[in-house]
Amino acid sequence: MGDFKHLVIAKFKDGVVVEEVLKGMEKLVSDIDAVKSFEWGQDIESQEMLRQGFTHAFLMTFNKKEDFTAFVSHPNHVEFSATFSAAIEKIVLLDFPAVLAKAPK
Amino acid sequence: MGDFKHLVIAKFKDGVVVEEVLKGMEKLVSDIDAVKSFEWGQDIESQEMLRQGFTHAFLMTFNKKEDFTAFVSHPNHVEFSATFSAAIEKIVLLDFPAVLAKAPK
Repeated sequence: MGDFKHLVIAKFKDGVVVEEVLKGMEKLVSDIDAVKSFEWGQDIESQEMLRQGFTHAFLMTFNKKEDFTAFVSHPNHVEFSATFSAAIEKIVLLDFPAVLAKAPK
Repeated sequence: MGDFKHLVIAKFKDGVVVEEVLKGMEKLVSDIDAVKSFEWGQDIESQEMLRQGFTHAFLMTFNKKEDFTAFVSHPNHVEFSATFSAAIEKIVLLDFPAVLAKAPK
């Protein structure tokens, strides 16, 4: 069994200082050992029609599903989620066991 | 500068054999050297409300944006995109330089 992934795509509300939200998220994942790695990005390339207003992707990786479950119920995550929810206009979450179909050489 | 990522989240139409679409996608990325790695997953965890009907995530990684651009215009990708578009009910694409905020130990 491979890694378990927690993927969030979001559009922030007007006026939100995204850098501050990101700072909070980086602190969150660095404070919680269950999070194996964390990557994020801001769309710069796709056509507006295809990104449908979403601008940011956040991808957390866990060694196993149990680590993800521990992360979700961690008090720091519960607290951060409330802040994050207030900052976003729309969001999609997907949580899945990752299949590595082509590995980096 | 880190990796460049191409993220697709999708909901397939009723009746689509997802395994066949996946087989085509795996062949596509294995045939094109510009694709550094490819992971995908099917959501098993998040609440229906939060995944908003989306079921699958596909994440391709490139060493640099130019490799992504080469992939997008590759004839095999152009051909596959037509097949893929016919199979999906909805989709969001995000293309971004990835920021690795927490690296795996």
